[in-house]
Amino acid sequence: MGSNGRSVPRPFRLMLLLLGLAVLVGGPGSGLLRSAPDSTPIEQSTPAAEVQEHATPQATDQDHSEAGEPAHAEGENGHGPRIRDVFFVLIAILVSAKVLGELAERRGQPAVLGELVAGVILGASVLGVIPAQGDLYEIVHVLAEIGVVLLLFEIGLETDLKEMFRVGPTAVRVALIGVFLPFLLGFLYWYYANPSIGVHPEGVTFTVVAIFVGATLTATSVGITARVLSDLNRMHTPEARIIIGAAVIDDVLGIVILAVVSGMVGGAALGVLSVGKIFLFAVGFLVLAVVLGTRFAPAIFDFVDRMRTRGVLLVAAFCFALAIAALADLAGSAMIIGAFAAGLVLSSTNQFDAVVERIEPVADIFTPIFFVAVGAPVNVRLFIPGSEDFDLGVLFVGLILTVVAIIGKLVSGFGVTRSDTSKLLVGVGMVPRGEVGLIFASIGLTAGILSSSVYSAILIMVILSTFIVPPALKVLFARKPPSSPSEATSALGGDMNETLF
Amino acid sequence: MGSNGRSVPRPFRLMLLLLGLAVLVGGPGSGLLRSAPDSTPIEQSTPAAEVQEHATPQATDQDHSEAGEPAHAEGENGHGPRIRDVFFVLIAILVSAKVLGELAERRGQPAVLGELVAGVILGASVLGVIPAQGDLYEIVHVLAEIGVVLLLFEIGLETDLKEMFRVGPTAVRVALIGVFLPFLLGFLYWYYANPSIGVHPEGVTFTVVAIFVGATLTATSVGITARVLSDLNRMHTPEARIIIGAAVIDDVLGIVILAVVSGMVGGAALGVLSVGKIFLFAVGFLVLAVVLGTRFAPAIFDFVDRMRTRGVLLVAAFCFALAIAALADLAGSAMIIGAFAAGLVLSSTNQFDAVVERIEPVADIFTPIFFVAVGAPVNVRLFIPGSEDFDLGVLFVGLILTVVAIIGKLVSGFGVTRSDTSKLLVGVGMVPRGEVGLIFASIGLTAGILSSSVYSAILIMVILSTFIVPPALKVLFARKPPSSPSEATSALGGDMNETLF
Repeated sequence: MGSNGRSVPRPFRLMLLLLGLAVLVGGPGSGLLRSAPDSTPIEQSTPAAEVQEHATPQATDQDHSEAGEPAHAEGENGHGPRIRDVFFVLIAILVSAKVLGELAERRGQPAVLGELVAGVILGASVLGVIPAQGDLYEIVHVLAEIGVVLLLFEIGLETDLKEMFRVGPTAVRVALIGVFLPFLLGFLYWYYANPSIGVHPEGVTFTVVAIFVGATLTATSVGITARVLSDLNRMHTPEARIIIGAAVIDDVLGIVILAVVSGMVGGAALGVLSVGKIFLFAVGFLVLAVVLGTRFAPAIFDFVDRMRTRGVLLVAAFCFALAIAALADLAGSAMIIGAFAAGLVLSSTNQFDAVVERIEPVADIFTPIFFVAVGAPVNVRLFIPGSEDFDLGVLFVGLILTVVAIIGKLVSGFGVTRSDTSKLLVGVGMVPRGEVGLIFASIGLTAGILSSSVYSAILIMVILSTFIVPPALKVLFARKPPSSPSEATSALGGDMNETLF
Repeated sequence: MGSNGRSVPRPFRLMLLLLGLAVLVGGPGSGLLRSAPDSTPIEQSTPAAEVQEHATPQATDQDHSEAGEPAHAEGENGHGPRIRDVFFVLIAILVSAKVLGELAERRGQPAVLGELVAGVILGASVLGVIPAQGDLYEIVHVLAEIGVVLLLFEIGLETDLKEMFRVGPTAVRVALIGVFLPFLLGFLYWYYANPSIGVHPEGVTFTVVAIFVGATLTATSVGITARVLSDLNRMHTPEARIIIGAAVIDDVLGIVILAVVSGMVGGAALGVLSVGKIFLFAVGFLVLAVVLGTRFAPAIFDFVDRMRTRGVLLVAAFCFALAIAALADLAGSAMIIGAFAAGLVLSSTNQFDAVVERIEPVADIFTPIFFVAVGAPVNVRLFIPGSEDFDLGVLFVGLILTVVAIIGKLVSGFGVTRSDTSKLLVGVGMVPRGEVGLIFASIGLTAGILSSSVYSAILIMVILSTFIVPPALKVLFARKPPSSPSEATSALGGDMNETLF
């Protein structure tokens, strides 16, 4: 403890403050935060409103001062949620992310674990501060997406294109194993074990469900691992480069798989020609963005740099990241791949240092919102015996899927051939499914292919695979034989000696 | 022209690019951007979708690749607008704000004028990129509100509390004249001239309309003037301090007036006791926030400064600004007053420099969104002869209201008694009504007190009073006898000699 001992209780005081705030804006599971347009404002349910019924002159005055206020608030907001409520939710997200992130770090864990836990606490199943749908959800969702785009943009900025090419073949092997093995294992488990949990949707064959379950096991969530690597200051290790590279390729393959399973939702299988076309589009966009970007971005940013208005370089970089992300989505690729490509491209411009320095504070605001939003949909009642959502069968199937998910990705580490690079570290780094697995599962649920029990089992796999990775990577990096004396003295210390440039 | 001559055409090329982008995401007035949940995605209206009807095997493949894509996009977004469309709108807002801001600066105008014009062009009456309602509007609105909160927070950070107390009595005089004179002039004009434009709403007396029109003339939009002062690098002049102080007091008075007119919407007049209570709440919150904040903020931020996680100080400052703003709203005061108070408070902490440096890039992203959003509701058809919204009577009444609005605030400059401070500059600085006038008018319209013609006339007053101020302040500051040789050599040069500290 030492010098920390004195200040340890303080985070708890802050947490109490935070919980007070959360309760103020909305109790457990309450819908108070979602004030629909023209609905009764919160103030009118206070005792003051009840006084109105006994109309003394004094009370009449109070009546009008109460009536005046909502009109004011509504006038400021027009329709939609009150700005004030959005602010309270944002404050709850950011403060809890930082407080729990700090607590995680003080317990020797990566900060991102604390942010995920903050999301679970603020989510619909505990405090209900972040609703699962509605206007407020949408606003948080947009900010979270900007957050993950900025995260991948920053990772792209930190990535050296030449280094990426050097680890390229390894990353491709890791990605291919890590996609096809979990898919195969998941499919075989479901097809042969036939775990009949809950009601099986009518008219859907076990084969289709098995394919869908397999598909949810394929995609790595690059965000979680990248943040852990960044938290542990290991972004420049060979393992990190392989993981990031493989996760990006993984996303490209994920798009193809998503198109195939989405086609199944329509009731038919995709032809080989279409699958090839989707694959070429997804890969082609990334290549084209990097090639054209490296060609034209320097001139564009040299021009922007000569403009006079305040913040113009930052705004240009921010818009560049958003634009390539949106265009990637439009071209049938993934947003985060576009954002990563935008970062790669900008790392070759003269304004690189200025962009990195100025985009960092903006990312500091947006990225915690993403990780809290990833944690928010977690239903803790799945794990609490006695609660209505607890089902031993679902939990059991979820645990098996988790084991399948972990084995599939751990084996992908054998795609690594270099002896100085840890196969285990790469494998573990590929494990988290995070939001990508949730997207797959929710499509299956919406399309009526997955029953809510199967969806819950997949959810358990996504939760466990995401939450075990931050502490696991922490332990593995601490155990890895340090390659330099400086690293031996500090687990969080510089690892520049490991990089090749 | 000189050295600029070569690069002048380039902004136009950029603008063409921007316009192309704007047309890509939504044509004039089109609702393409607002993709309602489960509505037909844009892709399905492409020729490829028509091919589906002639079901050749090849076409079937295409069919599924088309069907796969929307599912992908929908899966990523759940309900609500597509993230991609939100990104395109944000890019259009930020790029047009910076390009037109740059053009404004190169023509010798404050950048904020360009941002307002960008808003008009992107607004519903021209390109329709920023819709007037719906999910996309709400998201832009929330980001704009964060923008104005950060703007006032930055102004608060730059403001010296002692200096504010020194100009206090002057600011109070300016604010009082600037609120009551426009109200009186507006009321008297409407009551005696009885301008009967359009249909008069049933059951509403001319007196009530006259009071409402008077009320819309009272509130200064501190945002516009503050940005102009900041663009011109004149934030530390005595005139700037008086204008900011008076505009803040003006907002407190505006809250009281808003409560009174909102009470009228309910059909009854407020008692003197209630008006007094609202006033005390609005003032009390500001005083309490500053007193308590100055007492406790240093300890809180010293504590935050000892935390280890990345960006924690910035996030704390951001949340502090949002929290005081939201609490101000909750207490019946105005958000921007809370944000200003938060800035004042933080300027006394040890982390002041670090906060200023890190909040700046975040503000650079959010504040342009606010000014574009202020420009967006402007209906240019009001000014175009031959268009359906053009009405000579409405235009005439709007021009008279504008004259009344300008005279009322110009006279408020006589609240200044010091000979070294320009009465005219202070008066002009108080003129813009901006979003505050729009809020008043929209309450009247929604409540059925103002006819749409009267609303349009008020809108003209708001537009003109907002748009004339940036160039007017620019000219007046250039004409003001320079108080130091350094100022004489450069119109945009340092004015540190004018400040008293």
